Amino acid sequence: MQNFVFYNPVRMVFGSGSVASLAELVPEGPVLLVYGTGSIRRNGTYERVLGALSGRRVLEFGGIRPNPPYEKLVEGVAMARAEGVAFLLAVGGGSVIDGAKFIAAAVPFEGDPWDLPGRRLTPRSALPLGTVLTLPATGSEMNNIAVISRDSTREKFGFSGDVMFPRFSILDPDLTLSLPSRQIRNGVVDAFVHVIEQYMTYPVNTPLQDRQAEAILLTLMEEGPKTLADPGDRDARANVMWCAANALNGSLKCGTVADFATHRIGHDLTALYGLEHAESLGSLMLALWQHERQRKGEKLAQYASRVLGARETSRETLVDRAIGETRTFFESLGMPTRLTDFGVDPEDAARQLGNRCRQRGATYGEHDDIGPEEIAQLMRLCG
Amino acid sequence: MQNFVFYNPVRMVFGSGSVASLAELVPEGPVLLVYGTGSIRRNGTYERVLGALSGRRVLEFGGIRPNPPYEKLVEGVAMARAEGVAFLLAVGGGSVIDGAKFIAAAVPFEGDPWDLPGRRLTPRSALPLGTVLTLPATGSEMNNIAVISRDSTREKFGFSGDVMFPRFSILDPDLTLSLPSRQIRNGVVDAFVHVIEQYMTYPVNTPLQDRQAEAILLTLMEEGPKTLADPGDRDARANVMWCAANALNGSLKCGTVADFATHRIGHDLTALYGLEHAESLGSLMLALWQHERQRKGEKLAQYASRVLGARETSRETLVDRAIGETRTFFESLGMPTRLTDFGVDPEDAARQLGNRCRQRGATYGEHDDIGPEEIAQLMRLCG
Repeated sequence: MQNFVFYNPVRMVFGSGSVASLAELVPEGPVLLVYGTGSIRRNGTYERVLGALSGRRVLEFGGIRPNPPYEKLVEGVAMARAEGVAFLLAVGGGSVIDGAKFIAAAVPFEGDPWDLPGRRLTPRSALPLGTVLTLPATGSEMNNIAVISRDSTREKFGFSGDVMFPRFSILDPDLTLSLPSRQIRNGVVDAFVHVIEQYMTYPVNTPLQDRQAEAILLTLMEEGPKTLADPGDRDARANVMWCAANALNGSLKCGTVADFATHRIGHDLTALYGLEHAESLGSLMLALWQHERQRKGEKLAQYASRVLGARETSRETLVDRAIGETRTFFESLGMPTRLTDFGVDPEDAARQLGNRCRQRGATYGEHDDIGPEEIAQLMRLCG
Repeated sequence: MQNFVFYNPVRMVFGSGSVASLAELVPEGPVLLVYGTGSIRRNGTYERVLGALSGRRVLEFGGIRPNPPYEKLVEGVAMARAEGVAFLLAVGGGSVIDGAKFIAAAVPFEGDPWDLPGRRLTPRSALPLGTVLTLPATGSEMNNIAVISRDSTREKFGFSGDVMFPRFSILDPDLTLSLPSRQIRNGVVDAFVHVIEQYMTYPVNTPLQDRQAEAILLTLMEEGPKTLADPGDRDARANVMWCAANALNGSLKCGTVADFATHRIGHDLTALYGLEHAESLGSLMLALWQHERQRKGEKLAQYASRVLGARETSRETLVDRAIGETRTFFESLGMPTRLTDFGVDPEDAARQLGNRCRQRGATYGEHDDIGPEEIAQLMRLCG
């Protein structure tokens, strides 16, 4: 096991009716309600939140779309500064929460706010924020990470800092009942890939963390399809919601080796080709497994045995099953696993993503040796 | 899944050499070093801690023995008040940490400090504290619980409160290398039982939490024996240490039903017959499984299948295997599983513990229906 620091002070308030606890959780002072493109107004969440905040001064900043754009968020920063906002309440999914985290960190930040994601700065102070989660997927409700996009430069970067942990997050599975199956699918895949990125690396003797990761993978594979088969299955919704929060709350990474190449390279697929966040992940993760099948072989075999229940003993067979059956699982959720399924030409992606990587001088992967050439190969494997 | 709130703000600093980070973690002001009966002076931990705190005003309060007694701890309360202590640093195992938590809560408490455990009060303020763990077992390093004994009345009670969370806990597996095998054994059993108490109850559809519990049980069964077979196996020590912290940090209890009867009744066995804490647990847990084999049957069978790898399908056979093989596991660690092994007469225990329960008007168990009669039956089953 490697040395680590684990710290996660988010108060998680989980269950039916938990929105009512906003009355006690939100501190005094003007509140800025941050939300998305309107679903909370259609499904009753907006009324429930305002009801719990009755008597408070509540300002609103809505219209945050998926892959929250810097150009929009800076309006929220100006508003929070002008109105002397004391607390941010994000009501929505990962994009809304990430947007609120950015606003929270940017309000007291004295430099160019784009530097926070753009130069991956760690903010030293931030407005306090809380969340009401409506879409389980990114885990942002239980971590200190925000991923922000910039439309003008087609960039998408993450940054983090302890001051960006939500003070609390309210997870009421009932609020997810109106989600379309496409968003459920995206959430299951996003959470699944988060777990994989902290698990499918070279082993460093972390048996508990391995099994904690496998616990989430097994549960997502079991409960995810239930939520799609029966959208009214509240238990399955609750279980997926708790899986997504646990998938990226820092616990799986304790002492292990992580490989966030799928997310980091996927951000470019989203920024360049407009794939939804989760759509950028499935094909890339499987291509990465194929590309790294020797170096990730021990864990791929362990996953095939423990998660997929494979009984073979040959490493090669187990790795093939890991890749093949995970592809089948994603596709069973309705998630395509080839770039061509999204109308993206793998050769064009190989050229464009390779160039971007070269310009940035970036490298990815657990060995930090996936560069422009390897990214081009990955794009072809995604094809 | 039931509604729940999960909150755990302890900063966990894990790994070889992590004691050095005390220099940054301990805030300004006089520090009260709280420790036990001297092992930290013999194994070099004391010097390492003082080295990291050089330049600080450090007062000492040592001599806290297992099952930390109220009569001793109130001396620490008086000392902390008299010296204007700003921070408590507990260096030791669960008893030392629990003792420090009690002192921390008692210093600003205006009433009779025994009321905190005695009447299970929730303290509203406490001195800040941190820990350096030397004995993985109780999980106190990552929770807000303290269990305190009172010698004069032979009582032992737990209490808790958010202000009692350590600000940080330092877990350096190297500090555990000098532990005698008896303490390792006790720690593995204590952590194992903590997990069981949040898992072996009636099911309420919590598949992730079930698997997170099974992850710890499997790892303890795998790594515990390694630490006994090779006391120099640092990886195994590290894995047991991380298991013990995860076993009682609140995560397993999220949305599940808990049954802390084993610990609560075990406290009386310790208080009346002087059994070590872990010694009080093994026989009781197995007796409880036997007593509740119908009501806990579904989970006992799940445990036999998933943790023990049993392939039978008959519920009765699986339950028998769960009880029998767990007994074998405890005994393989050198932990006796019968009261008579400790020289305790089961009939005497049936009478004495039954009477105590009757006097308190207490009931235990997940259905809150284990009273004096049932406790007497349990003692006979422990025989």
